[in-house]
Amino acid sequence: MIEYIENGSVTSVKGIKGSGVFCGLKKKKKDVALIYCEKPCSAAGTFTLNKVKAAPIIISQYIINHKHNIRAVLVNSGNANACTGAEGHNDALESQKLVASKLGINPSEVLISSTGVIGQRINMDALRSGIELAVENLSETGGIDAAEAIMTTDLAMKSYAVKVKLSSGEITIGGMCKGSGMIMPNMATMLAFITTDAQIEQDTLQKTLSKAVNLSFNRITVDGDTSTNDMVILLANGVSGISISERSDDYKIFTDALLDLCRKMAKSIAADGEGATKLITVSVKKAASVSDANIVAKAISNSPLVKTAMNGCDANWGRIISAIGNSGIDFDPAKVCINFGDIKILQPNFKADFSEEEAKKYLMNNEIELNIEINTGNEESTWYTCDFSTKYIEINASYRS
Amino acid sequence: MIEYIENGSVTSVKGIKGSGVFCGLKKKKKDVALIYCEKPCSAAGTFTLNKVKAAPIIISQYIINHKHNIRAVLVNSGNANACTGAEGHNDALESQKLVASKLGINPSEVLISSTGVIGQRINMDALRSGIELAVENLSETGGIDAAEAIMTTDLAMKSYAVKVKLSSGEITIGGMCKGSGMIMPNMATMLAFITTDAQIEQDTLQKTLSKAVNLSFNRITVDGDTSTNDMVILLANGVSGISISERSDDYKIFTDALLDLCRKMAKSIAADGEGATKLITVSVKKAASVSDANIVAKAISNSPLVKTAMNGCDANWGRIISAIGNSGIDFDPAKVCINFGDIKILQPNFKADFSEEEAKKYLMNNEIELNIEINTGNEESTWYTCDFSTKYIEINASYRS
Repeated sequence: MIEYIENGSVTSVKGIKGSGVFCGLKKKKKDVALIYCEKPCSAAGTFTLNKVKAAPIIISQYIINHKHNIRAVLVNSGNANACTGAEGHNDALESQKLVASKLGINPSEVLISSTGVIGQRINMDALRSGIELAVENLSETGGIDAAEAIMTTDLAMKSYAVKVKLSSGEITIGGMCKGSGMIMPNMATMLAFITTDAQIEQDTLQKTLSKAVNLSFNRITVDGDTSTNDMVILLANGVSGISISERSDDYKIFTDALLDLCRKMAKSIAADGEGATKLITVSVKKAASVSDANIVAKAISNSPLVKTAMNGCDANWGRIISAIGNSGIDFDPAKVCINFGDIKILQPNFKADFSEEEAKKYLMNNEIELNIEINTGNEESTWYTCDFSTKYIEINASYRS
Repeated sequence: MIEYIENGSVTSVKGIKGSGVFCGLKKKKKDVALIYCEKPCSAAGTFTLNKVKAAPIIISQYIINHKHNIRAVLVNSGNANACTGAEGHNDALESQKLVASKLGINPSEVLISSTGVIGQRINMDALRSGIELAVENLSETGGIDAAEAIMTTDLAMKSYAVKVKLSSGEITIGGMCKGSGMIMPNMATMLAFITTDAQIEQDTLQKTLSKAVNLSFNRITVDGDTSTNDMVILLANGVSGISISERSDDYKIFTDALLDLCRKMAKSIAADGEGATKLITVSVKKAASVSDANIVAKAISNSPLVKTAMNGCDANWGRIISAIGNSGIDFDPAKVCINFGDIKILQPNFKADFSEEEAKKYLMNNEIELNIEINTGNEESTWYTCDFSTKYIEINASYRS
């Protein structure tokens, strides 16, 4: 039903143009991304739950809440425009206006987003020139440049697109996102921008986005810190001519495809977490409730002791069961089972007669699975995280975020 | 009123003997500590809230809950005896019995405690010989040896004693404790053993200990992980002949002295956190409630991004205010003030015109203070933590805890 497009991006979607340019907010690399929609889009968004919200969050959330149609999204990296007071708010409004005037649209049709250093005014001279350049460079193949321009400490560019076969024809969903520190779901904890040429009205769009975000971006963590600037935006321009309503079979197919794309993006963020050497999938099964499963998966995914053990390829199940014990859920430790991939590590009654060598070999993979059975019920949840390396410390002891 | 004794220890208290010996649970260093009380002691304790409780926790907590008088405390390092099932429980009971028979007392008068690797059976042959040796080596100056024997990844031995002048004479309180990973208060998160020659009945003793622990050991964190084996024990043998009842002025003096000692021990654990290069005191003031102040202090103290910035001596107040924003309390970010020691870093309305050079120089100290004003009320709380260094990762990627 769904097929990923090679070198896919937000501009793989018909009617969407993009660009990514350098204006000097970062030292060398592209730092301004623009998405332009030839036709007005219905739009949905989810935003950080951090009480400290950056100016672009406040402005974009207001627009999404008021269900405005959207024509453009401006994103800058290198500066978060957070904790910058009234001046920072005005800077954000000015950049929104400038995008609108250059594109001949209304400011209320422009979403804005920032990522980078907290607490410093943005260099508006640089940003103004960046906006001009970004508008000039808009193209139907600019999605990859845009994905590059939103990166901060990310090592890998994160851009995808998927074709989805519906009963009435084919639509496309494209997405880009960035990590890779201050990552811990309290909504989404990073930036992601998704486009589609399906036609979906705003309420339905918000519903399907919220569901997908909850099962993907809200289940990743790098360091347990939620940023002041996180947002996920989904734009639907209807250019495919294919309309999706909430009660149709196509809605289910679209929702599944969107979730698949969001999961791919979320996993790419966890895998590229600051200093990460491996992607860790934490699957918690047979829990008394989804809430319990989430609590346990989050506790394991956030435990520095589990994450450092995984970095050292140490089959240290004691730290995993201790993290479960700290999570606050009710369970019997003697009933817990832990598998690394298919390797049985811990069985009921603390039976742990596995081969250390085999376990170590498995943990040396780039992608590993910690499969936990709580044995208090039948609910489950899967989270994604990465290991904790000396490199994470090095990056964060020097980088001013 | 109070005076710390040089080279003080649990055996600085009259009527208390101690020893610390090597039996082979660790590779080279002392691994069995014994405290012996010539007279029966009233005893109080606080224990880990981790749902996964080691065998010694279950046994010692039972004894404290039943208000037994105590004559001895056995502690081993090198093995936690956690997640070891019925066999591990029997191992713990056997070691308790052996101590009792060697000392000619009842098993119910012996508290036991373990720290080290989770999920492996303890080497009972080694421990049996260790218990014999520890009994043979008991002496009135053995407190320092005992403090050495409870260390795991600690770099510094943690042993103290304080003389306290009361209206009716002088009493002594001695204490030893250990860290230094899996440290995050959910009770106490480490081991601490405290002795006093004051005479205090059990209910009063428990009350004063719980209060002191809440304001000291429960306000430190190294890595946000609570261990399966944490306990704090306070023994009062009454040998001084000085009785302290709950309504007396002496009770207040004793409680303050105990808190002072507990704070000193708690700070020594935070300062010696795995890989730590500095002790960080996080003081949160002008909060709407003590609960709010605790939540904020804990969020800052546990944030890997704050802790890595402090490691890099980076005056990164953005990460501090973002951590407050994540803590979940209600506040206005524009009203928050942040001082490093006396240096004004952030003032209301995000005014941050400090000297980067001066701030960096301050952050290079071995002990630093992050002073936060939330400005929502008049309550406060102080926590202790350490920075996060590459060394923490190195220790925990290799050490099997």
